[in-house]
Amino acid sequence: MYKKILLPTDGSKFAEKAEKHALFLAEASGAEIIALSVVETSFSIGLPSDDTIFQINQLLKKETEKNLQKVEKMKEECASDVKITLKVDEGSPAEVILETIEKEDIDLVVMGSSGKTGFDRFIMGSVAEKVVKAAECSVLVVY
Amino acid sequence: MYKKILLPTDGSKFAEKAEKHALFLAEASGAEIIALSVVETSFSIGLPSDDTIFQINQLLKKETEKNLQKVEKMKEECASDVKITLKVDEGSPAEVILETIEKEDIDLVVMGSSGKTGFDRFIMGSVAEKVVKAAECSVLVVY
Repeated sequence: MYKKILLPTDGSKFAEKAEKHALFLAEASGAEIIALSVVETSFSIGLPSDDTIFQINQLLKKETEKNLQKVEKMKEECASDVKITLKVDEGSPAEVILETIEKEDIDLVVMGSSGKTGFDRFIMGSVAEKVVKAAECSVLVVY
Repeated sequence: MYKKILLPTDGSKFAEKAEKHALFLAEASGAEIIALSVVETSFSIGLPSDDTIFQINQLLKKETEKNLQKVEKMKEECASDVKITLKVDEGSPAEVILETIEKEDIDLVVMGSSGKTGFDRFIMGSVAEKVVKAAECSVLVVY
């Protein structure tokens, strides 16, 4: 049913749940997974010091690498044959996800519904909602 | 992975695609499917004649029954063991879907992204977007 599954991950418990669904679907379909962690860099617009921005970005990249290590660990634990490629990118999460769908010819995105509560959701909608709205492929929002 | 899959259907080609995904996931998970067709009755508010409303509703119900017959046909064609229950309800599609999720203890909704283009989407968002936003279960939006 699916050939190439995109698994955006931010290391949250929502993402961990999504990982389990993605692995199940990849196994059932014989699909491969691209696990994507996005370093959110949009916040830095307006910060005065280049050096501060650089240091923050370094910290965020380390955090991102940790997220992907979690995916690798999950892969080892489930001892599955599923091919998982790890990918790090920078920018606005929803935009990077949408670009990756096109670039990598993704046919299913599996992602957590992380933004379902809280103030942000009412203002902007969650990343998942944005992806559902704009993606030209199927999207599984895991609750 | 999934136990009870809700498949809202409106007889469109988007819904037909969603049906295939729902069947695949039900087979892979050993889940049962509830196929739901909603008779949209909200339009009738403001119509002057009760008789006209009654006649329109009768026509819509027939249309709805046809949609569910399509699901039954699909079930026969795939000759699968998946248990499919057919259900007809009335009201606003998104609201009825959200109520059914709770009432039937659904853990996955599989639905078409029918509202992804056109004017309506920009004004109100599609039914799928509303369900993703409010549902307390996983939602697969099929493109």
